[in-house]
Amino acid sequence: MYTPEYLEDFTIKVFEKMGCSTADAKAATKVFIAAELNGLPSHGMLRIKDYYELWKADRINVKPNIRIVHESPSTAVVDGDGAIGMLAATRSMEIAIEKAKTAGTGWVSTRGSNHFGIAGFYSMMALEHDMIGICMTIANPVVAPTWSTSQMLGTNPIAVAVPAKSYPPFVADFSTTPIARGKLALAGKKGEKVPLGYVQDKDGVPSTDPDILKEGGTMVTLGGDYEHGSHKGYCMSAIVDIFSCVLSGANFGPFCPPSVAYLPLKDEKVGEGTGHFFGAMRIDAFQEKDAFLSQMDKWIETFRAAKPAKGYDRVLIPGDLEREKRERISKEGINVLEPIQKEMKEIANDLGVDFTIGL
Amino acid sequence: MYTPEYLEDFTIKVFEKMGCSTADAKAATKVFIAAELNGLPSHGMLRIKDYYELWKADRINVKPNIRIVHESPSTAVVDGDGAIGMLAATRSMEIAIEKAKTAGTGWVSTRGSNHFGIAGFYSMMALEHDMIGICMTIANPVVAPTWSTSQMLGTNPIAVAVPAKSYPPFVADFSTTPIARGKLALAGKKGEKVPLGYVQDKDGVPSTDPDILKEGGTMVTLGGDYEHGSHKGYCMSAIVDIFSCVLSGANFGPFCPPSVAYLPLKDEKVGEGTGHFFGAMRIDAFQEKDAFLSQMDKWIETFRAAKPAKGYDRVLIPGDLEREKRERISKEGINVLEPIQKEMKEIANDLGVDFTIGL
Repeated sequence: MYTPEYLEDFTIKVFEKMGCSTADAKAATKVFIAAELNGLPSHGMLRIKDYYELWKADRINVKPNIRIVHESPSTAVVDGDGAIGMLAATRSMEIAIEKAKTAGTGWVSTRGSNHFGIAGFYSMMALEHDMIGICMTIANPVVAPTWSTSQMLGTNPIAVAVPAKSYPPFVADFSTTPIARGKLALAGKKGEKVPLGYVQDKDGVPSTDPDILKEGGTMVTLGGDYEHGSHKGYCMSAIVDIFSCVLSGANFGPFCPPSVAYLPLKDEKVGEGTGHFFGAMRIDAFQEKDAFLSQMDKWIETFRAAKPAKGYDRVLIPGDLEREKRERISKEGINVLEPIQKEMKEIANDLGVDFTIGL
Repeated sequence: MYTPEYLEDFTIKVFEKMGCSTADAKAATKVFIAAELNGLPSHGMLRIKDYYELWKADRINVKPNIRIVHESPSTAVVDGDGAIGMLAATRSMEIAIEKAKTAGTGWVSTRGSNHFGIAGFYSMMALEHDMIGICMTIANPVVAPTWSTSQMLGTNPIAVAVPAKSYPPFVADFSTTPIARGKLALAGKKGEKVPLGYVQDKDGVPSTDPDILKEGGTMVTLGGDYEHGSHKGYCMSAIVDIFSCVLSGANFGPFCPPSVAYLPLKDEKVGEGTGHFFGAMRIDAFQEKDAFLSQMDKWIETFRAAKPAKGYDRVLIPGDLEREKRERISKEGINVLEPIQKEMKEIANDLGVDFTIGL
């Protein structure tokens, strides 16, 4: 088990050695550690290697000029200048929050970015400012729209964080597909089948093979099939794509740049880098802050009091599971899988950073 | 078959007789006719009786003082004062559009309203202003959150309209459940079973009985079950509920006032009336208008060129189906079901308005 501090120190040093400023290295590291603490290792240490190899392939700008290229009182388009996604995203959300302070709300569409980790992190940045935070991003195109077999969309997550008064905040952070892509890869590695409704083969026939993506298959959108409303998942995913990429001038849908160096850059570009979308809404731009927070408490109490279905003992509020994991992992430490530890050790050796295997 | 003009004239007169101003009667009628033309009769003439009976039960205010009760440069809370939902919603979206003209975006959370018809109508109001339009609303609580059997949420739809240059706009308008409630009622009337994944019984066991809601059953959220991501549909629906009702001070979730007079008002109120949420984002608050519209054309071309799955001959863009229905129904006329014609005739007789059955 690793302490968060140990992994934080390691990750900061890796980014510093890659050429990031200390401030940038610290800011990016925060998001990696938050993913581990939230029990989402698919967005934690596992991704260090991806970034390291993108950097070696000269596909990451470690001295970016992240800047506003267009704005209005409540909006901005931010160009990430090829930055580590966590840095472009953190700066973009800060701008959304700044805009909201004067305009009531702030909305930022970001281009020229890269994979940014967990969407929930940025939505939660709004909470300490008594704002609702919103975040969306595109991702590697592995999802087909309803009625199609083409890889056109990513798992395109949406995160919304809403503060409450005496309870922890409402934090929804979810992909617009039935499952996250990492769970599919995990089933594949274990040699397990997956339920129908996650993936389809190259002809669009539903499949239980988690490795079908390697044979021209695709993931499907939330809903699973048309009969069960997959066109609604397609709508959600398309909205994320348009807000993140068409509004900002990033590479939309199938043109999303790969977040791993072993996949080549696409031949055709329709914009700059990867796109995200951020929103901040000041609570007191809608109503007196205390009244809102008390009403959110009542909302949470009401939904927590819903009758559990047979076989369940409670009804969750979005954010409960991640928070419980965070509390547990903060105490117990972070379990990094052996193969990932080995990757980290190799990077450490390459860059001249300390890393101890098997802590 | 009825012409849109005939039904428009009838509906305007009904609302005038109920005491609405001519301007209000015309504004409300627009939404009913749009629903019929879009091929969504569940939100068209079928609803006239609901409004007529709410009015007779003194549960609709036909002389409302719809007003802003709180605002910032980019936001407002609107109190609908018990108005016909279409009027509170139209006024709210107008305010969102006005705010966007100066602040770049406009966001309105509305309370004290009633059922407002089709969400897509209000999102599309933004298009002629070169804005993206957004609309959400709560609805009668018939949906259980994941892990629960309690009626806590409505089918809570989301609509997003995005203009393009040489193609029709992108218009997504979808409930956050696998199917709309109307389709369930229809299957029940026909005595048909529905596929698993739409509803569950009072214990949370999946059911194929469309009438199970009458026996304590509930609809489920988009995704169908936890394994297939119904918690993501629950998140979406909860976000609609919080943005529409907690931000505005309306009755959230299970406290949503019934949209039909035969269901009594709830004993407990947690706010004022029904809540909605509206957004308008000015395209040129993000980038040069023409560049954006051209890129949306490219987006639409890209997705239209996706490879169709086996058994399908094309991949649709959100809004295609409704537009095709609109073109067909505008030519052929509006088919009003016989039982609905009878209801309209009764209302016509009661109010002293002309209505001819069997046109």
